[in-house]
Amino acid sequence: MALLVQKFGGSSLATAEKVMRAAKRAVAQFEDGRQVVVVVSAQGDYTDHLIEMARAIHASPDPRELDALIAVGEQVSSALMALAIHKLGYGAISLTGAQAGIRTDEVSTKARIRTIDTARVRSELAEGRIVIVAGFQGVDREDNITTLGRGGSDTTAVALAAALGAERCDIFTDVEGIYTADPRIVPEARWTPSIDYDELLEMASLGAQVIHYRAVELAKRYDVVFRVRPSYNESEGTLVCNLSDQMEQVDVRGAALDAGEAKVTIRGVPDQPGVAARIFSRIARDGINVDMIVQNVSEQGLADVSFTVMESELTRAMDIAESLSDKLSAAGAESDSDIAKLSIVGIGMRSHAAVADKMFRALAEEGINILMISTSEIKLSCVIRRAAGEKALRAVHRAFELDRESQPEE
Amino acid sequence: MALLVQKFGGSSLATAEKVMRAAKRAVAQFEDGRQVVVVVSAQGDYTDHLIEMARAIHASPDPRELDALIAVGEQVSSALMALAIHKLGYGAISLTGAQAGIRTDEVSTKARIRTIDTARVRSELAEGRIVIVAGFQGVDREDNITTLGRGGSDTTAVALAAALGAERCDIFTDVEGIYTADPRIVPEARWTPSIDYDELLEMASLGAQVIHYRAVELAKRYDVVFRVRPSYNESEGTLVCNLSDQMEQVDVRGAALDAGEAKVTIRGVPDQPGVAARIFSRIARDGINVDMIVQNVSEQGLADVSFTVMESELTRAMDIAESLSDKLSAAGAESDSDIAKLSIVGIGMRSHAAVADKMFRALAEEGINILMISTSEIKLSCVIRRAAGEKALRAVHRAFELDRESQPEE
Repeated sequence: MALLVQKFGGSSLATAEKVMRAAKRAVAQFEDGRQVVVVVSAQGDYTDHLIEMARAIHASPDPRELDALIAVGEQVSSALMALAIHKLGYGAISLTGAQAGIRTDEVSTKARIRTIDTARVRSELAEGRIVIVAGFQGVDREDNITTLGRGGSDTTAVALAAALGAERCDIFTDVEGIYTADPRIVPEARWTPSIDYDELLEMASLGAQVIHYRAVELAKRYDVVFRVRPSYNESEGTLVCNLSDQMEQVDVRGAALDAGEAKVTIRGVPDQPGVAARIFSRIARDGINVDMIVQNVSEQGLADVSFTVMESELTRAMDIAESLSDKLSAAGAESDSDIAKLSIVGIGMRSHAAVADKMFRALAEEGINILMISTSEIKLSCVIRRAAGEKALRAVHRAFELDRESQPEE
Repeated sequence: MALLVQKFGGSSLATAEKVMRAAKRAVAQFEDGRQVVVVVSAQGDYTDHLIEMARAIHASPDPRELDALIAVGEQVSSALMALAIHKLGYGAISLTGAQAGIRTDEVSTKARIRTIDTARVRSELAEGRIVIVAGFQGVDREDNITTLGRGGSDTTAVALAAALGAERCDIFTDVEGIYTADPRIVPEARWTPSIDYDELLEMASLGAQVIHYRAVELAKRYDVVFRVRPSYNESEGTLVCNLSDQMEQVDVRGAALDAGEAKVTIRGVPDQPGVAARIFSRIARDGINVDMIVQNVSEQGLADVSFTVMESELTRAMDIAESLSDKLSAAGAESDSDIAKLSIVGIGMRSHAAVADKMFRALAEEGINILMISTSEIKLSCVIRRAAGEKALRAVHRAFELDRESQPEE
């Protein structure tokens, strides 16, 4: 019998009415002859509310206790969802992460799933019940409750789909699917009917917050086909799967703008082996996430090393950069937070060298200067002035004709 | 090392401030060199709030799901309490009922504890931590979450104290302890420094809602010495233990008034063997709780059978009484809800025949008529007119000198 995993996010469960609506979606699939596993997030801002309660007592709460506390949000949602399905006249049972056999490592507040013992879920499904699993949580070896960090319920859903060999996983959200660009900036942005795991990973890391990259990574590793689809209507949303071996590929799947980064440059660094490693190992040791890295060598054997960090981490990054500049006898460190990162993503870029050219030309035609360039196999990012960001995004979106229907992908 | 169990009720944990206050109490005992296990209830009206959420979706929620839902209230409290103890600079860990090894039967919403595997609690105590256990809950054989019904957290505390061989169990509440009578009616009522399990059981069943009778029964069975004491000051409260073998006993420990019952009488019942059984098995089958039962036989071989029920169940009880009256060819059924039950409780009554006489005289001196009398080994109850209830309670309280300090009980 075909098995479907459905995941509902917090905004899709925020009221009793919305819970009933989600329950109807589960029942519809059950009525179609499928076994249905539903994964739920905490309602609305319930998790934030619980964190506030903890902070009212302790400014930096112990992660193990914080996990025990916030895991209740999903437990509440799962019980309410089971009751909603009962209300519709169908059998359903809620399971906590522990009851659903989800075992994680010991890293509180950002645990990773190690194994899933699906025995209980399978036996409840075999009894003809819809099974509701509290997302975002598991238990470690000692039965301590752990949570999976941001996007945890997506991860639970994909992991369960993999462990149960589900036909598909449906991630219900409050948007139409994955867009070619942020529709608040690019009005002509469209949702894209399908996208490759790698493309979505890049989009996710570029700030398209629809689904967390961990869940996408997991889906890619276990070949879990999933849909990101709206909870408020019947649209199919965006199918996420492996498209990389398709004959005819679109060049560019989408474009994204990130105005939350800042640039740090260390000037006049001696161009010797091991210097870059010294810089970035020091920065990594302080837990600062570095995004783009660019290095240029001048003729005097001195290099300028630039990198981007989250703007919120700029002060700490600059402290390190200045101290490194002294130690390396470099010419000094400087920062620039008046920047935005514009990226295009698409697996077709692997085989189409002309993509970069088209992007640079689109920016040039708008008179936009490029401060930094960084490429990966399926992504091309340019750092530009922040004020030009939205204009640049629209220009690139237009240049790649992302507003047009893509050709069928067969 | 001496071990103490402390239990904090919902009103003692209603705010972050109150949680901190409770945490200080736990730490004080730990500082005195004791191992400390803390059992917590859900904060304030959190459980009611969760039940409302369930009812908004399903008018009669499935008990298994209701338990999964409402158990989170205590889970939240336990994590917050652990954080509060951390804040004070001490080690603490919260455990759910399942993690604390509390196994129950399968009866959702009113499960009974079967076994407690104390391994985890003991190992955390051995690590020098204060252990916080979510009260009111456990898991059944299949790891489904169950709750223990009314007074469940008291039961958890006493059961843990028994399983761990605790020196004592402190039940913190928002009153000074057990009173000789309801101080709202009898201003001169005092808290009593010590009371026997059986006396407290009778008091609890008479509406002294300080602690649930199930917890008292359990304490009696396993000889768990406990204190009912205020959370807002340092008073010792009331010590509850086995006093029945003490040489010098007070006659009467306290008096209570219950104005929530109604009386049903079936008149002219044939006085034959098995008739009473027929009446009360029929009533029990309908789940109606009967309190007092009185039967008098007249000279014609006909009996009047009277019993009291909760006033809220009077309509159903009368329906049954009328149908029974027909079937038994009795003279008819009638009801009377203008009543109050006045009771005195004390293990000394076992050996002091004069107690009843003193009570009846106190009532007679106030001109109060007695409608029904019922006695047990340690209790004497009189049904009187409701309007006379409070006056009668004060008169009896005075007659037994309950406002005076009792003699030391050594």
